Amino acid sequence: MLGTVLYGPRDVRCEEVPEPKLLHPTDAIIRLSASCICGSDLWPFRGLQDIPSSMAMGHEYCGIVEEVGGAVATVKPGQFVVGSFCISDNTCPHCRRGFQSSCQQREFMTGAQAPRARVPLADGTLVATKELPADDLIPSLLATSDVLGTGWYAADAARVEPGATVAVVGDGAVGLMGVLAAKQMGATRIIAMSRHKARQDLALEFGATDIVSERGDAGVERVKSLTAGVGADSVLECVGMKESMKQAIECARPGAMVGYVGVPHGVELDGEQLFFSQRGLMGGPAPVRRFLPHLIDLVLERKINPGKVFDLTLPLADVAEGYRAMDERRAIKTLLRL
Amino acid sequence: MLGTVLYGPRDVRCEEVPEPKLLHPTDAIIRLSASCICGSDLWPFRGLQDIPSSMAMGHEYCGIVEEVGGAVATVKPGQFVVGSFCISDNTCPHCRRGFQSSCQQREFMTGAQAPRARVPLADGTLVATKELPADDLIPSLLATSDVLGTGWYAADAARVEPGATVAVVGDGAVGLMGVLAAKQMGATRIIAMSRHKARQDLALEFGATDIVSERGDAGVERVKSLTAGVGADSVLECVGMKESMKQAIECARPGAMVGYVGVPHGVELDGEQLFFSQRGLMGGPAPVRRFLPHLIDLVLERKINPGKVFDLTLPLADVAEGYRAMDERRAIKTLLRL
Repeated sequence: MLGTVLYGPRDVRCEEVPEPKLLHPTDAIIRLSASCICGSDLWPFRGLQDIPSSMAMGHEYCGIVEEVGGAVATVKPGQFVVGSFCISDNTCPHCRRGFQSSCQQREFMTGAQAPRARVPLADGTLVATKELPADDLIPSLLATSDVLGTGWYAADAARVEPGATVAVVGDGAVGLMGVLAAKQMGATRIIAMSRHKARQDLALEFGATDIVSERGDAGVERVKSLTAGVGADSVLECVGMKESMKQAIECARPGAMVGYVGVPHGVELDGEQLFFSQRGLMGGPAPVRRFLPHLIDLVLERKINPGKVFDLTLPLADVAEGYRAMDERRAIKTLLRL
Repeated sequence: MLGTVLYGPRDVRCEEVPEPKLLHPTDAIIRLSASCICGSDLWPFRGLQDIPSSMAMGHEYCGIVEEVGGAVATVKPGQFVVGSFCISDNTCPHCRRGFQSSCQQREFMTGAQAPRARVPLADGTLVATKELPADDLIPSLLATSDVLGTGWYAADAARVEPGATVAVVGDGAVGLMGVLAAKQMGATRIIAMSRHKARQDLALEFGATDIVSERGDAGVERVKSLTAGVGADSVLECVGMKESMKQAIECARPGAMVGYVGVPHGVELDGEQLFFSQRGLMGGPAPVRRFLPHLIDLVLERKINPGKVFDLTLPLADVAEGYRAMDERRAIKTLLRL
C-alpha cells in the first residue's frame, strides 16, 4: 500500500510501505476513512525534532475495523472507530484518573497517513460508534482523534467554566479547536489571538467574540483592556514557543490556569516570576481518550463541526504538498483522501 | 516602643522605633496579642534577598484594634482581629475571585514584630472575632495570619480532595501546616517528607500517615513505592528550592497539581519536561484573606491547634535569638511575647 514516510527535513514522501499486520493479540487493523496532517508533524518536517533515519508519519485516524487480535474484546471487524493519537490501555491508574496520555503502557500512534494502520491496545484506545456515520461527518470525527481533543484538553486544563472570559493564544488548528471547546464549555467571552483573516473568520465561526491581532506585549495590553485590566479567567496556550507561553501567562488574571498543549520548544519558566504572577499551569499530551465518547456524540448529533478546520483536501499521493501548505501557512490543516 | 529592625545579613535588632500612626483614613492601629518570626524572614536575614538600608520586620499579627481611620467601617476599637500578611481591599476583581494576595492595591505587611502596628486597608484585610478569644488560643490565631493560611493555600492550590493521597515536601512550619490542611480537607494518606525527629513527630500529630526521610531521587522512589508506583494525587511544595521543586513534581502522579508556596529561589522549569511529565503547578503568595474566616472558626471551635508549630517562645527583646534558632533549625517557629 502507499504510506507517508519522513526521511529528513522537508523530505516527506508518499511511497510503497508494507501492509500493517497484527503484532500483538491486543492489536487491531483499521481501514482509515480519511487521514490528515498534524501541526506537530511540522516539527520533524522542519528539522526541529530529531528523527531516526526514516519515520512513518500520521497519528490521527478513524475508520473501519478490519481485523483484531485474539485478546481484543470491545471492538470487532466492521465497526467504525475513532482512537486517540496516544495509545492507552484505559485500565491503569493514570487512565482511570483520566490521564490516558500518561498511560503506564503509553505509545504514540504512527503510520496513520496511509489507507490502513495498526492500532495497539485496541480495547483501551478505540471508541466504536453504534452505527456507521454519514460520510460528511468523517472530517469532524477524524478531528476528534487529536486536534479537537487537544484543543479540548487545553480548555479543560485551563478550567474553563460557564460564563468565563477565555483567551486563546495560537490560531493554528489546535487554537481554533480551543475556541470551539471553550464555547462548548460555556465561556461567554472568547478572545482569539490571530492576525490571519481566514483564521480570524473561522475563530469567529467557532465562537470567538473578540479578535486580538496584536502579539507580545501589545497583545497582552489589548487583552487587558478588553477585560477592564483584569485579564482572562482561563488561557489556552496552543503554540509552544517561549513568546507564546509568556503571552499566555500575562493574559491570564491572577489565580487563572493556563492550559498549554503546544509541545514547548525552548520554553524556560522562571519560578519566582511564575510565583508572584500567581498564574497556574497545566498541560501535556492531551488525554483525548477521556473526551472521545463525548466529542464523538457532539459530532454525531451535529452540535459541533470541527471538520471545518480542514481547509485543504489532497489525495494521499500529494501528502508532501499538504505538509508544505501547512508549513507555509497556506493551509490551516490538510485532510488526506485515501 | 520596641520593634524589630533588620540592618543587613544576620544583623537583626530589637530597638526603639516610632509608635505607628494612622497614615490613611483606611488604616487601623492594632495592639498585637503576640508576634512571631516567619520562615520567609530568614531569606533577608541570611542575605539571600536584597533589602534597603534597614527594614522593619514582622508580617504575622493578631490583636486588639486601638484606633481606626475615618474611612474604616467594619472593625472598631476593642475588637480582636486577625489579618493576612498581604494587605488587600477585598473588593477588587482579584480579591472577589479569592486571590486577595494579588489585590490591585496589594501591599505586604511590615513592622509586626512589635507591640503595635499599622494595618493599611483595614476593612479589606482584617477579620474580627465576635468575642475576645481565650488567651490559650492566641498562638493558633496568630498562625492563621500567614503560616497556616500559606500551608492551607498549598493544599488548596494542589487541589487536595477527600480520600486523596498527598505528599508534602518541606518540614518547616509551612509544610507542617500543609499536613494539617490536607488532613482537614479529607486526605486519607499524607506523606510528610522530613528527616528531623521533632518535625516528624509534629507532622504525625497534625495528620501525616507516612514519613519519608529520604530526599531527592531516593525520596521520590520512596513516595512512588508507597503509592504502588503511581505517585501522589496532590503535592505541596513548601520550600522554594530547585531540588525541592523537582522532588515535588516527580512525587506527583500525572494530572496532579503541585501547590507551591515556598518563594522560589533559583528555580527554573523546563517547559518540555513539565509538559511530558503532565504535572500542573499553581502557587504564589497565599490569599490568606480568603481562608481566614474558616480558619479562625476552626481555631475558635478548637478543631485544630496550629499554634503547636511554635516550639520556641521568647520575649521581643530576644528576637535576634529567635531568628538564629530558626536559621540553625533549632526551632521550627518562634513566638514572640510582647
